[in-house]
Amino acid sequence: MAQSIYTDLASEARELHPDLPGVSEETVQKGDIGVTRIRVETAQAAQALSKPIGRYITLDVPKLSERPLSLFAETSKALAKELQALFAPLDEEATVLLVGLGNRTVTPDALGPRAIDQIYVTRHVAQYLPDAFSAPVRSVCAIAPGVLGVTGLETMEVVRGVVAHVKPSLLLLIDALASRRTARISTTIQLTDTGIQPGSGVGNARAGLGRDTFGIPVIAIGVPMVVYASTISQDTLSILAAEMGFAQKEDTLRALAEKVAEENFGPLIVTPKDIDSIVTDMSRVVADGINMALFGASYEQVRALIA
Amino acid sequence: MAQSIYTDLASEARELHPDLPGVSEETVQKGDIGVTRIRVETAQAAQALSKPIGRYITLDVPKLSERPLSLFAETSKALAKELQALFAPLDEEATVLLVGLGNRTVTPDALGPRAIDQIYVTRHVAQYLPDAFSAPVRSVCAIAPGVLGVTGLETMEVVRGVVAHVKPSLLLLIDALASRRTARISTTIQLTDTGIQPGSGVGNARAGLGRDTFGIPVIAIGVPMVVYASTISQDTLSILAAEMGFAQKEDTLRALAEKVAEENFGPLIVTPKDIDSIVTDMSRVVADGINMALFGASYEQVRALIA
Amino acid sequence: MAQSIYTDLASEARELHPDLPGVSEETVQKGDIGVTRIRVETAQAAQALSKPIGRYITLDVPKLSERPLSLFAETSKALAKELQALFAPLDEEATVLLVGLGNRTVTPDALGPRAIDQIYVTRHVAQYLPDAFSAPVRSVCAIAPGVLGVTGLETMEVVRGVVAHVKPSLLLLIDALASRRTARISTTIQLTDTGIQPGSGVGNARAGLGRDTFGIPVIAIGVPMVVYASTISQDTLSILAAEMGFAQKEDTLRALAEKVAEENFGPLIVTPKDIDSIVTDMSRVVADGINMALFGASYEQVRALIA
Amino acid sequence: MAQSIYTDLASEARELHPDLPGVSEETVQKGDIGVTRIRVETAQAAQALSKPIGRYITLDVPKLSERPLSLFAETSKALAKELQALFAPLDEEATVLLVGLGNRTVTPDALGPRAIDQIYVTRHVAQYLPDAFSAPVRSVCAIAPGVLGVTGLETMEVVRGVVAHVKPSLLLLIDALASRRTARISTTIQLTDTGIQPGSGVGNARAGLGRDTFGIPVIAIGVPMVVYASTISQDTLSILAAEMGFAQKEDTLRALAEKVAEENFGPLIVTPKDIDSIVTDMSRVVADGINMALFGASYEQVRALIA
Repeated sequence: MAQSIYTDLASEARELHPDLPGVSEETVQKGDIGVTRIRVETAQAAQALSKPIGRYITLDVPKLSERPLSLFAETSKALAKELQALFAPLDEEATVLLVGLGNRTVTPDALGPRAIDQIYVTRHVAQYLPDAFSAPVRSVCAIAPGVLGVTGLETMEVVRGVVAHVKPSLLLLIDALASRRTARISTTIQLTDTGIQPGSGVGNARAGLGRDTFGIPVIAIGVPMVVYASTISQDTLSILAAEMGFAQKEDTLRALAEKVAEENFGPLIVTPKDIDSIVTDMSRVVADGINMALFGASYEQVRALIA
Repeated sequence: MAQSIYTDLASEARELHPDLPGVSEETVQKGDIGVTRIRVETAQAAQALSKPIGRYITLDVPKLSERPLSLFAETSKALAKELQALFAPLDEEATVLLVGLGNRTVTPDALGPRAIDQIYVTRHVAQYLPDAFSAPVRSVCAIAPGVLGVTGLETMEVVRGVVAHVKPSLLLLIDALASRRTARISTTIQLTDTGIQPGSGVGNARAGLGRDTFGIPVIAIGVPMVVYASTISQDTLSILAAEMGFAQKEDTLRALAEKVAEENFGPLIVTPKDIDSIVTDMSRVVADGINMALFGASYEQVRALIA
Repeated sequence: MAQSIYTDLASEARELHPDLPGVSEETVQKGDIGVTRIRVETAQAAQALSKPIGRYITLDVPKLSERPLSLFAETSKALAKELQALFAPLDEEATVLLVGLGNRTVTPDALGPRAIDQIYVTRHVAQYLPDAFSAPVRSVCAIAPGVLGVTGLETMEVVRGVVAHVKPSLLLLIDALASRRTARISTTIQLTDTGIQPGSGVGNARAGLGRDTFGIPVIAIGVPMVVYASTISQDTLSILAAEMGFAQKEDTLRALAEKVAEENFGPLIVTPKDIDSIVTDMSRVVADGINMALFGASYEQVRALIA
Repeated sequence: MAQSIYTDLASEARELHPDLPGVSEETVQKGDIGVTRIRVETAQAAQALSKPIGRYITLDVPKLSERPLSLFAETSKALAKELQALFAPLDEEATVLLVGLGNRTVTPDALGPRAIDQIYVTRHVAQYLPDAFSAPVRSVCAIAPGVLGVTGLETMEVVRGVVAHVKPSLLLLIDALASRRTARISTTIQLTDTGIQPGSGVGNARAGLGRDTFGIPVIAIGVPMVVYASTISQDTLSILAAEMGFAQKEDTLRALAEKVAEENFGPLIVTPKDIDSIVTDMSRVVADGINMALFGASYEQVRALIA
């Protein structure tokens, strides 16, 4: 299918190009959690997938849609493990800066800012009360810079100055993503060491946010929260084309589908009716996983610290 | 098209049966507001449209999607006028009971409860402080009974007792609706003197709420807030069938479309990303219109009373 | 001190009359949770305390102010235990109706409605899907009727009709209370089998809600969420009078204090800055305890059902 | 009285030192709005008042507590007028950066961030779509940097980088204040060209935010949202001391009052029960006034642009 079909997920882009060379992939299933690790290794593969060279790890946890408490905990633990593998080794004195992308007042876009609220920040304690902790504690700070339409400022313009001043060793971005499958809303988490690309995410940063921009490692954590309504239109066509044996007409159908989608459903998003609860749950799962990874803490320790 | 295509709007049901006998219809355009008045006059027409015999008035205000302040005021005024025509004459001493249907904690379903918060209630003042008003003031009370899944109670079970005790002369229901067109989300208001049918609305009351249930006139005011994702799938097919000249295959396509929609997009809804602001705006437009109609007040008076 | 000092807590009223006959009292400390069980046994005692004859159980958990997760769980368990003792025995087929008092849109008054959102309601399932549960399950329903100023309806007017129709065997009321001590905000839970008295609570129902009103047992569960600002003024005076040895002038001081409080701080309440989080936490603690008591479930079962 | 009595308002500090030299003051009443303009002119006066040398303008609008719509508009207009006088002349090409201080998730501290949401930002439009406006439009951008306890970052650390990059000609800070009088909550607006001092405001920035910090003019706009509970305790004492003729004992009383307040009511704040609505109203009044001042727009234009 055409590149016009947008997805923030490398695993979905990969599904559309299953035989593309320059990509390595492995999937491990452990209980209810599937972990797919994709490496985009060549510039050609990067261009075909519209995803930069780098590592992409996807946690797929379909049963999260049933909202079982214990699976939230398991998912946080799996996220922590993958995250630690992705940023290790990190010096004990290193400072980590978290950035929650998105618009807090638009529910499906609020994942980043609401996860930031639940991160255990320590930088100021270490700075003002150096004796508050008995053992050395990772220095963590966090910011939710808002979106261009509300601030008139690019995310990069806000974060750049903080990076210059705070001099973190690692940047962790959290963002709501757009997926191609409604089933992935709130059941998938993607980690990548490539940062965020221009125009990605629900909030649509214009400037890319990666190692090139800031000169330090940048890890992005994203959860699909919306599917563009046009995707449903396109999916309907694909399914129909397959079922009706219209293979020969697929190009015509696809062109039509894109036209129909753009004219009729362009800027609309599909989101579950209970998106408020979903953002509450998933921002906590993400924040718990990050807190565990950054502080080497257990799930129970993290829940007790933050609640 | 088949009855499987669900809509809460009589005007949309009518569009699917433009030549059905037993239905009268008139449309008036005044500035940015179109008013369509439909009467379902026969049992046959009622069955074909899945809408009971009665009056259905639709305000279509496409420019509301641009959120101009003055049009909010104009729409409230037009709503007040249609509403007064629908319930007049109403005795000066008559009590009106408003019921805000839907689930306050699910944004697209919160229109009813949030409109109720903005209704000017007077019954208790009239009762406990009879001299508080210099002139007689309409007695108004209001309740948001919640939804079955949260309360374990049918709306009817809650409202029935209040009606028996308060003995209102008129029941006014406010509800979020499901439409077939995404463009109608938040830009259409429907009034009807038939109440709410079982299974209608986003909140899905099981028991019908009409004159039959309560023995008094019941007017329902609804605003489309969601489109089922399956509708987009079905619309895509219809548009394609038309454009590709598949007329002869329409039955096959439709059957397929329903299957695709049900399997892939069943319970999902389509809603704009800024649904929070939309519910805030439209619950105010509806409450303003009701306040104006019930108290014979101007827009300015109503805004001053409630803000 | 005078009766003019208002408190919803029987234990605080008791502190002001420590030697009053006709009152029995016992206190048990278990870990971080203190349980005080007071019985008001005579009409004279009831009048002196402004609390009807009946049982009052207070859980005092000062460390809740530090918000440790495990103590939330322990408090829910203690609440469940006291609650079960208070309403037992309850027939297996008996229906329980919960009523969340207060105004959902005013944070410190939202405890009741927000607890209701988290109660596991079953009545409709038992009614519409009798085979959904493998074993008999307690029939539970719940309503948040709103406050007089918003609805124009007395709580009693709404609840009475539901009681007449649903015929519950037990009524459970949940309400935010006013305490005399800021330290009790969110750290104390009171249970009583006397229901709610007129003018009690933050929401100020005018009619009493007790066994007399409804003809069935009524248990009220309340958590102090506010202290009237005038209380601080009065407390300042008492403390000063004690410290300065003004005993002989106490009457004069008290009269002055009441005048000062009324003129300067009358309708104001004192509430912690993070009242939003506190209402979130405590509505969950109360709902968890009730769910455990009603369904004979463990804490883990309850959290899994509701989350 | 002692400096221990904290207030963010220069006019309240002035009331405690009515005869202090080095301070000029004028008050103008226009309809329901009183405007007090204070100049702190000497270092001695600055120290005595704990307010830096500079201009302080206070709008006192007691009737705002009755929430009349038209007075909101009048207050916004008065604010716009004073604000323009304070920052004029401002070059047409100059960029203005607004900073909303405070914690968005703690209601009484959310004024700044919520006002920011309603500011009409234009900088990105001017930058990316230079032809979008027919006439030159003031370049405005805005940020809500969060509070130290949530971000681990000083406000200054976030704003400094943005200032360095955006190079605004004026910095406008918006913050919730602490007042000494409960009657001033939400009825007073203070403007000052001295910025924000360390430890001021509800959010308690540690570093000062003024011309010294950023090298450009800094105007701060604040609205009292809380009174510390200890203030009520202190006020009670003052009133009593006056009424009882304890003048000779005032020092003893004051020392006692401070001790009582600190031990019993230290970190508590007093805030009206309907603080949610108040923050909604006042963030709009402030944002409207700022939008009018920055864009030279009428109230009606501003409401139409933003709603």
